[in-house]
Amino acid sequence: MDTNRKEAADPRTIDLEALRAAFTGRLITDAGDLEPFTIDWRRRYFGRTLAVAQPDSVAGVAAIVRWCASRRVAVVPQGGNTGLSGGATPDDSGRSIVLSLARLAKVRSIDTINNSITVEAGCTLAQVHEAAEAAGRLFPLSLPSEGTCTIGGNLSTNAGGAAVLRYGNARELCLGVEVVTAEGGIWNGLRGLRKDNTGYDLRDLFIGAEGTLGVITAATLKLYPRPAAQITAMAAVSDPHTALRLLELAQSMLGSTLTAFELISKLCLELVTEHFPDHRRPFTEASPYYVLLETSDSESEAHASAQFEALMERAIDSGIVSDAVVATSGAQSRALWALRELISEAQALAGKNIKHDISVPISSIGDFVERTNAELQRQFPGIRMVVFGHLGDGNLHYNVSPSADRAGPGHEDEFLAMQPAINRVTHDAVVAFDGSISAEHGLGQLRRDESARYKSDVEMALMRRVKQALDPLGIMNPGKYLPPQ
Amino acid sequence: MDTNRKEAADPRTIDLEALRAAFTGRLITDAGDLEPFTIDWRRRYFGRTLAVAQPDSVAGVAAIVRWCASRRVAVVPQGGNTGLSGGATPDDSGRSIVLSLARLAKVRSIDTINNSITVEAGCTLAQVHEAAEAAGRLFPLSLPSEGTCTIGGNLSTNAGGAAVLRYGNARELCLGVEVVTAEGGIWNGLRGLRKDNTGYDLRDLFIGAEGTLGVITAATLKLYPRPAAQITAMAAVSDPHTALRLLELAQSMLGSTLTAFELISKLCLELVTEHFPDHRRPFTEASPYYVLLETSDSESEAHASAQFEALMERAIDSGIVSDAVVATSGAQSRALWALRELISEAQALAGKNIKHDISVPISSIGDFVERTNAELQRQFPGIRMVVFGHLGDGNLHYNVSPSADRAGPGHEDEFLAMQPAINRVTHDAVVAFDGSISAEHGLGQLRRDESARYKSDVEMALMRRVKQALDPLGIMNPGKYLPPQ
Repeated sequence: MDTNRKEAADPRTIDLEALRAAFTGRLITDAGDLEPFTIDWRRRYFGRTLAVAQPDSVAGVAAIVRWCASRRVAVVPQGGNTGLSGGATPDDSGRSIVLSLARLAKVRSIDTINNSITVEAGCTLAQVHEAAEAAGRLFPLSLPSEGTCTIGGNLSTNAGGAAVLRYGNARELCLGVEVVTAEGGIWNGLRGLRKDNTGYDLRDLFIGAEGTLGVITAATLKLYPRPAAQITAMAAVSDPHTALRLLELAQSMLGSTLTAFELISKLCLELVTEHFPDHRRPFTEASPYYVLLETSDSESEAHASAQFEALMERAIDSGIVSDAVVATSGAQSRALWALRELISEAQALAGKNIKHDISVPISSIGDFVERTNAELQRQFPGIRMVVFGHLGDGNLHYNVSPSADRAGPGHEDEFLAMQPAINRVTHDAVVAFDGSISAEHGLGQLRRDESARYKSDVEMALMRRVKQALDPLGIMNPGKYLPPQ
Repeated sequence: MDTNRKEAADPRTIDLEALRAAFTGRLITDAGDLEPFTIDWRRRYFGRTLAVAQPDSVAGVAAIVRWCASRRVAVVPQGGNTGLSGGATPDDSGRSIVLSLARLAKVRSIDTINNSITVEAGCTLAQVHEAAEAAGRLFPLSLPSEGTCTIGGNLSTNAGGAAVLRYGNARELCLGVEVVTAEGGIWNGLRGLRKDNTGYDLRDLFIGAEGTLGVITAATLKLYPRPAAQITAMAAVSDPHTALRLLELAQSMLGSTLTAFELISKLCLELVTEHFPDHRRPFTEASPYYVLLETSDSESEAHASAQFEALMERAIDSGIVSDAVVATSGAQSRALWALRELISEAQALAGKNIKHDISVPISSIGDFVERTNAELQRQFPGIRMVVFGHLGDGNLHYNVSPSADRAGPGHEDEFLAMQPAINRVTHDAVVAFDGSISAEHGLGQLRRDESARYKSDVEMALMRRVKQALDPLGIMNPGKYLPPQ
């Protein structure tokens, strides 16, 4: 129960017919139909809801929020329900309304000269990719869940992904937002401008706020020219320190054409090739670590290849890289990317695991991995580290699997019982390196208290003031993001 | 007088000795020494102040703000005092303290692997450039006032400049900030992280807030690899519409190596060559418009030249550009840039003028210039348009000079009397094109009321709530940014 919320609604007294009459769209109230909206994607949170409201228009979103505000009913905004921290799942009080943006899914306009597109919150990421591509442009946000996740959710969680190194997070890809406020007003901040210094940065306040300040209903996003060629390479390196040396060399030789720089530890690749036998390690010899690199070239494939060959030659000559392969076809590129993208699934097939989504200053990645691996090994002998992620952004998915002899189904409870202690060691280390315990997955329910634990009183007080200012009734996604006071 | 501020201080009862004792540093109280801090750079605003406090440490900044908060004395943060909108100039009540960050000017640390630098607010932009260069890195923010303006001011006004096309505004170049809050608490948000989704985006709330929410005392900024070569070119085009076609072609052929794309109208170049006879037009024939382009290449000068030659050849062949020159030396590059950078000074030497700093969606620049020029000419026959700026960002300095026969000193009052009407026509047109009336110069005193006039009630209410939440006493730079209620 959330103590921030004023005079929370009693579900027995809620007249849903008045809500049904307040907007056009769909109001789901049958228990069986509600279920998909009340369980998160990773099936860790099981909530309840009064109803799921799917309005057809922004005016409908505003009407629903006004209805909720007048009755002190909590609003839980939801996009594609692919979040990894339970931010879009209602609590189990059964007193909230899930506000699904699914039916607000129009591409409103596209401007190839301004390189911008205006889309409604319920558009899937794939829909935005397709609209951009049809206009000869690139929308660079890249997530495995693109077919299901929505732009509203991407912005509300400030999604990251594999192209942040060059293009930034969802925040950096957004020029303007349209928001329904916690009072049910509509703020049209859909500006397609690169420069606008006429007020507080309200846009970035709503981005990443996980629906706790208002509901993003549409956004104007940046587009880019499509690259003439994209080329992928993989390099074998001895450790994360050496991977960093390769990053520095790649940035100096490739400049901004370097669009991805992903680290993959040995065990990651072993899990993938074991569980997906069609996929093979591209090197004869195994290596402690691998790096997946991608360039996006505005000139030609030949130019991109020549650039990559020169980089790899230099990297091998200077002993940074022990072996390297540059993809010479789209099929080869996809095969290299598959090795990276199948890691999560392969790890899941191998049994339960403990996930972290951390970032540290890029320069600290090597020390962080070395010291935290050692400390975890000391405290939990035999555990196996599944370390991979966006090294170029200082962001690792620093996951832990049980030792090989205790990986079977009979040992799951024993392993998961270690989770709080393993989280603590990992997150203490992250904070000691001035890092973040949630680099791209947000807070939701999963990291809410853990994050508050590490933040200063001053920062928590500033956040609570912002929350109080923009959602004085405390109806917007209560119980998420900020712990109850 | 600002009615937002609670129980404003009576200067007769202020005990400055207590303030002097509250911090280490310098407290200036002699009337003659105060003057440079109470007049803005363009000499449009003449204020008064109780004293100028120049603390030596962040703790000193906090102590001064606490002293002011306890006595309801207004705090006017000031950096290099080069702002163009009067945001750092105190009002004429004489009841405020100017809080000068000049003595907080240390480079705290630099990290060439993380590509970040942590500097105190009073560091000049030139100091940051030098520190970055000494470490083999680039800090790309580029402003003519770099020798005087400070990073604290750059961030508080979200400064733009000539490299925004590739690197973004000051906001996009900042990873983290340290802030003294309106209560005198210290928030250490100096994170050098590319990804951190653990809370509301407080950083971007303080950036661009012109000191009305708190005082930025230090920042962690992004660095970039230094390009192997920078090359400049100039092209002659018939009108802004055609300049946009060149922009699209340049972006598709040069990708992210294109780092500047500046528009210059015929009259701009005439003013420069008239008032600075050492500088000459690089083309035999005059053209209605010129474009200055710059690429920053990670490969080599030869590669950059070849890329530019290919672009210009294609642009001439397709009739977009009538003539073009690519600089073949650093001296030639500097000479081309000088033509752009001397425009403001040349226009000032030619007499009083009326300035606008506007942005519209890039695709609307052509129509905006065409229609607004025509409307201004219709209402104010004979006026001359001095149009230049960052076309690649949709940002123009859309300035107006009197007709040639009324440009003398005897006609200044007559011309300046037209300013409100000329502003209105221009800003109405900007808003009709969904643009911004202050693209990079901020609001301060100059555009405070004009901006509020065009914003929706919902947006103004959100801004006021943020202000009330973070500065409940109304002591932070009152009278700027937001009109009194």
